[in-house]
Amino acid sequence: MRVTCVVEYDGAGFQGWQIQPAGARTVQAVLEAALAGVADEPVSTVCAGRTDTGVHASGQVVHFDTTARRPEKAWVMGANTQLPPDVAVRRAVAVPDGFSARYDAHARTYRYVILEGWNRPALWRSRAAWSHRSLDAAAMQAGACHLLGEHDFSAFRSAACQARHPVRTVHAIDVRRNGACVSVDVRANAFLHNMVRIIVGTLMVVGRGEHAPAWVGDLLEARDRTAGAATAPPQGLYFLGPTYAREIGIPTPVEPGGPGPV
Amino acid sequence: MRVTCVVEYDGAGFQGWQIQPAGARTVQAVLEAALAGVADEPVSTVCAGRTDTGVHASGQVVHFDTTARRPEKAWVMGANTQLPPDVAVRRAVAVPDGFSARYDAHARTYRYVILEGWNRPALWRSRAAWSHRSLDAAAMQAGACHLLGEHDFSAFRSAACQARHPVRTVHAIDVRRNGACVSVDVRANAFLHNMVRIIVGTLMVVGRGEHAPAWVGDLLEARDRTAGAATAPPQGLYFLGPTYAREIGIPTPVEPGGPGPV
Repeated sequence: MRVTCVVEYDGAGFQGWQIQPAGARTVQAVLEAALAGVADEPVSTVCAGRTDTGVHASGQVVHFDTTARRPEKAWVMGANTQLPPDVAVRRAVAVPDGFSARYDAHARTYRYVILEGWNRPALWRSRAAWSHRSLDAAAMQAGACHLLGEHDFSAFRSAACQARHPVRTVHAIDVRRNGACVSVDVRANAFLHNMVRIIVGTLMVVGRGEHAPAWVGDLLEARDRTAGAATAPPQGLYFLGPTYAREIGIPTPVEPGGPGPV
Repeated sequence: MRVTCVVEYDGAGFQGWQIQPAGARTVQAVLEAALAGVADEPVSTVCAGRTDTGVHASGQVVHFDTTARRPEKAWVMGANTQLPPDVAVRRAVAVPDGFSARYDAHARTYRYVILEGWNRPALWRSRAAWSHRSLDAAAMQAGACHLLGEHDFSAFRSAACQARHPVRTVHAIDVRRNGACVSVDVRANAFLHNMVRIIVGTLMVVGRGEHAPAWVGDLLEARDRTAGAATAPPQGLYFLGPTYAREIGIPTPVEPGGPGPV
């Protein structure tokens, strides 16, 4: 049978999602070990969106195949007993064999969190980016609007990006201010490598008033990564999760929850 | 001259505030080392409220005496360069020699954060308590009202409490719900050891419906710690800071900031 899990993790202690050969601590490695303990057989997972070192997730989704028959709650409770504290399985649902956590996702949502302040934070050091200058959220939103729709995002992909083509469709970008915190939610059909972090790095330049919002459109049209802004750091980024083309009975994307709208 | 600092820290990596003889990692130890680096001489701090292992602070206040003359910003920036990432000095202000961070505080405010969910969180594992059962915040608020005013809080102090007498004045307790998060703000003239955590542990029993709100008043009157509820765990507790009897130019208590109302 095929099982789908919603997974939450704090990326600070991980070298990203994907299993690596040399014994690096990755979310996929610790998750597959825990699920194998519950299944009593090896488990291989396919995820909705790989995340880099330091990036968090509230609604990562994986699927895996297993001969084990367990109630859905037993997958959650059993895995959480074996997982380290910085990863938790929040839901588990049996799905049709043809379902893919990766290929059935028609959209993915990320949130980027920036904390303003003239000196550095301690409580949010690994859960938000820090901007020592104040940001104009309205200007950032105006800049973001140039990215909506289907475009060649060559200017917003890392040099290491291995995607076959650079065309993606951005469905929505919402810039919001809550006190000293500015968050940027980005939803697209899929993302190039570092695409959210490069978008946010670019919007922060606009937010600081160093370029007008129209500059974002100019960068997009130029398709040249080297003309753009620095990539925003990983600790501000949360993968809220995929949206599926068919109903699988688990609500994603997931708000990071906690004491407020992270 | 005497200098006052507002200090923020994530308590997860510390064995509490107070310097200990045997080389334990404490906030006071790393702070005094950093301030001594800026002052170029030893520094001893007096704090507004000592915190236990795992307890956080957004608005801890200390004072110290020094022969060094530095601009206020230099104390902040210099200390933060030398402090580990989980502690930050947020403000520094020169104060009159007679000012005491401890004795001039006529009130202290703590916040306790509880996250509800049928399984454990990962992102908030060290920044909130977890309740696997849902809580009735209105019942908790009704129970809390029995604690307002001046009382003998013997039922709400740990066995290890070294305070000379058990009488404290609770000015306010505010229980608030925000989605799956319940927060409890407590302001009092001063606190006994573990007083906030025992109050919250007691209110959680009421929130789960195991006792009526009036039980809180019964416990208070009985003055017997052994009759009460378990002490709530440290990771949900934040010291927001003191309120001073005289104006010293730094705004405390301090909201923990970040992406939402922690």
